[in-house]
Amino acid sequence: MNIRKRTWEIFGAAKPGDIASRAIDISILTLIFLNVIVVIIDSVPSVKESYGTFLNVFEIISVAVFTLEYVARLWSCTVDHRFNGRVRGRIRLFFQPMLLIDLIAILPFYLPFLGIDLLSLRVIRLLRILRITKVSRYYASFNLIKQVFLSKKEELVLVSVLMGLLLVVSSSLLFCCENKVQPNAFSSIPAAMWWSVATLTTVGYGDIYPITLLGKLCASIIAILGVGMFALPTGILGAGFIEAIQKNKEPKQICPHCGKEL
Amino acid sequence: MNIRKRTWEIFGAAKPGDIASRAIDISILTLIFLNVIVVIIDSVPSVKESYGTFLNVFEIISVAVFTLEYVARLWSCTVDHRFNGRVRGRIRLFFQPMLLIDLIAILPFYLPFLGIDLLSLRVIRLLRILRITKVSRYYASFNLIKQVFLSKKEELVLVSVLMGLLLVVSSSLLFCCENKVQPNAFSSIPAAMWWSVATLTTVGYGDIYPITLLGKLCASIIAILGVGMFALPTGILGAGFIEAIQKNKEPKQICPHCGKEL
Amino acid sequence: MNIRKRTWEIFGAAKPGDIASRAIDISILTLIFLNVIVVIIDSVPSVKESYGTFLNVFEIISVAVFTLEYVARLWSCTVDHRFNGRVRGRIRLFFQPMLLIDLIAILPFYLPFLGIDLLSLRVIRLLRILRITKVSRYYASFNLIKQVFLSKKEELVLVSVLMGLLLVVSSSLLFCCENKVQPNAFSSIPAAMWWSVATLTTVGYGDIYPITLLGKLCASIIAILGVGMFALPTGILGAGFIEAIQKNKEPKQICPHCGKEL
Amino acid sequence: MNIRKRTWEIFGAAKPGDIASRAIDISILTLIFLNVIVVIIDSVPSVKESYGTFLNVFEIISVAVFTLEYVARLWSCTVDHRFNGRVRGRIRLFFQPMLLIDLIAILPFYLPFLGIDLLSLRVIRLLRILRITKVSRYYASFNLIKQVFLSKKEELVLVSVLMGLLLVVSSSLLFCCENKVQPNAFSSIPAAMWWSVATLTTVGYGDIYPITLLGKLCASIIAILGVGMFALPTGILGAGFIEAIQKNKEPKQICPHCGKEL
Repeated sequence: MNIRKRTWEIFGAAKPGDIASRAIDISILTLIFLNVIVVIIDSVPSVKESYGTFLNVFEIISVAVFTLEYVARLWSCTVDHRFNGRVRGRIRLFFQPMLLIDLIAILPFYLPFLGIDLLSLRVIRLLRILRITKVSRYYASFNLIKQVFLSKKEELVLVSVLMGLLLVVSSSLLFCCENKVQPNAFSSIPAAMWWSVATLTTVGYGDIYPITLLGKLCASIIAILGVGMFALPTGILGAGFIEAIQKNKEPKQICPHCGKEL
Repeated sequence: MNIRKRTWEIFGAAKPGDIASRAIDISILTLIFLNVIVVIIDSVPSVKESYGTFLNVFEIISVAVFTLEYVARLWSCTVDHRFNGRVRGRIRLFFQPMLLIDLIAILPFYLPFLGIDLLSLRVIRLLRILRITKVSRYYASFNLIKQVFLSKKEELVLVSVLMGLLLVVSSSLLFCCENKVQPNAFSSIPAAMWWSVATLTTVGYGDIYPITLLGKLCASIIAILGVGMFALPTGILGAGFIEAIQKNKEPKQICPHCGKEL
Repeated sequence: MNIRKRTWEIFGAAKPGDIASRAIDISILTLIFLNVIVVIIDSVPSVKESYGTFLNVFEIISVAVFTLEYVARLWSCTVDHRFNGRVRGRIRLFFQPMLLIDLIAILPFYLPFLGIDLLSLRVIRLLRILRITKVSRYYASFNLIKQVFLSKKEELVLVSVLMGLLLVVSSSLLFCCENKVQPNAFSSIPAAMWWSVATLTTVGYGDIYPITLLGKLCASIIAILGVGMFALPTGILGAGFIEAIQKNKEPKQICPHCGKEL
Repeated sequence: MNIRKRTWEIFGAAKPGDIASRAIDISILTLIFLNVIVVIIDSVPSVKESYGTFLNVFEIISVAVFTLEYVARLWSCTVDHRFNGRVRGRIRLFFQPMLLIDLIAILPFYLPFLGIDLLSLRVIRLLRILRITKVSRYYASFNLIKQVFLSKKEELVLVSVLMGLLLVVSSSLLFCCENKVQPNAFSSIPAAMWWSVATLTTVGYGDIYPITLLGKLCASIIAILGVGMFALPTGILGAGFIEAIQKNKEPKQICPHCGKEL
């Protein structure tokens, strides 16, 4: 039972002072990071040709390590009071989002008959990059940003809805203006939406743009409104950050009778 | 009279607890939403070819429902004290902005002799999307954003005027610099304005840009000033949000004698 | 002498209640505004062909009115204590920035031998648009924005210097990376600067961009730093607006002894 | 010994009132500035052809002056208590970042056998532009900006990490969507990264963009998330500036017993 407990401790988040567990954490994260790099450079044809064999070996080792880690977690989880129970506890662990991602990242490797080509298989492995959210150093900052987004949720949803309205209206407008002159570029409203997104976000690839006078006039007004797409969320988030920081600074008021936060 | 009152209640904004009215509200909004989707996908030629008949049927049903709703509102409005009076009340309701939009959205369907082609007719139906402003859940956020815009109205108008000046000056400047070298792209000041908008909003499609040294120099300065077009309204709105939030937090001061807000 | 005083009053900024003077102010502003429109649409070849004669007549009338106004000011200014003295006062008025602009706007019309072509001559007339700064309604907002810029002058200058450094360094870098592969596009550092401005302001016309691996890597880092070019001035101006608004709210502290502001 | 001390004073940062030292500071900065201009215009082929000889002479003089300054500093530094000791002090000075940059800027000129071509040699000289950080006038603003960045370091690092994640995920996604249709443009994940950077920073050159429906859908979502790349750091920095300014305003609390800041 001691080995099982130690295994669970080692593969879980490291407690302060537990050097072995910390080392494992860092090794796994490094391996994930290396996997990301490998997936990226492996997509370059010339690299694949030269170092393909080496990268394949690295891939097999990675999947082996990830599998080992996955099995070890599943085997040892019963010592944790959240996942106790031989079957029930393991099923509960199995459906934890992080564990599901881990499974999705390694499973296709064992199921070649699924017909997933090697490339997609590797890109799926990129999912493990989400493990980075476990790095606890930036928890305070992450919580601050999360707190800001939550406290401004309603405003941000409203801004998103306004943006959605603007997107639908502007693409319909441009479609009506440009469809007859540029039947290929503005072939349909969804096609005009691609233009709308590129304009409202001010990306402006230049693959599609209005050429009629009326179209250009509408596009100008839409582009200027698009500037508001930056100003509104920025203003809201800026105000949110200031609020959150001031809130965190204030001493929490405690009820003198029950000791709870007011 | 009871039926009339109930009709008015049902088609108006739902009171808390009125499940039938709420169900109608949600149904109408869903139908509007589906109409928006239909208008968008119906503009795709391949979809139109395959599902044209189905979409036409859906359109006829939608217009029928919207007409029914419109007539029901006009018939039942007399029970509301704001619109009482058989003729006078209905005329007052008729000119309510929301009702006018509803009419514009369905009328062209009944007036084919107006010569509006089917496409425009459908795009007009998109106007009903404005009904979404009736969803009251986001009223608090909407009011906050409205309050910010109103309290900063003067600053925002001034920034718009400055932008307008910058637009006129920069397009005239670029027109003078580039007209001789690119007589097609910079054919007139309005054409140069299209360039100005694309540059000041940092969209930059790349369909028109200066090629002379002087033109590039001017364009560089204008592009950098364009960054200010983002910074100014963002700063103003950000300050507005902080002010508005602080104002809403402060307890309102009530006069102890008359009970009115100070 | 009374006529002279009245002339000066009428052509100066209107005092509250002086309807005649206010009417003149509005007329002149309207005429300037119409001139701006005329200059803009007159640059369109097809408009020029059709309405050229009409626009020419309008132009002659405008210049006549502006000349009359200019002479009337110069003649009547001696009644103002700031410009009294037949010669000395008029010279002082002559060198007022606004009057100089007015002169530059009308003078080229009388000096055809200067060899300025008709187009530039008209564009010069656009300068009178600066008269809009005399509209006093938005003085409070204008002063707020001016106050923010002045209070943050040092930070904004510093940000500009940092941007200048970034501009020089990034264009030199890209020039070194790309010159050999694209000798036409990145022909010199000034040419690379055009790229730098388009990238740092995120305009991105797409007329010039790196194609080498190293160039793309550098460009990516520069583009991400360019995002900071928006974040920094926006943050500074946002903070400035909040400061300025709080300052304006606070009651001014007056010394009880001398009555001056502390 | 007096000459040595004077030399050190003169080439160091000027004390208030020391006119000679100040003159030298300004001269050196002017020379650096002229060097930057020369490097920039010298890269223009037509300028190089016409004024090449003059620019070469200017270059030799500049390097001579910079060498003289470098040697004078190294010779005189022993009078400073930080760098006393004939060898040890000079070695310590030698490894000061600013002095290293000065050396790197002049050394390649004396080592033609290094095989550095003349162009790179000149661009290296641009490094001296960093000397501008010595201009102390804008120290207060620079410290404010530095203080803001330091106090928000964690949040900014977190945002950078989130951006990195978004970059990796979005380029892998687009690579999967577009690789088969555009094997040249989206040839590998690193190539797709170039697209990602151009989109997330909203530069959008238009040299590479998705053409498949799925690719455009993903790109739209990524472009909209890219707007957040502006909103988050701007909001964080804006809050940081407001905090920093408020902090600097508050009177520092001094302990009445020991006199240290609390």
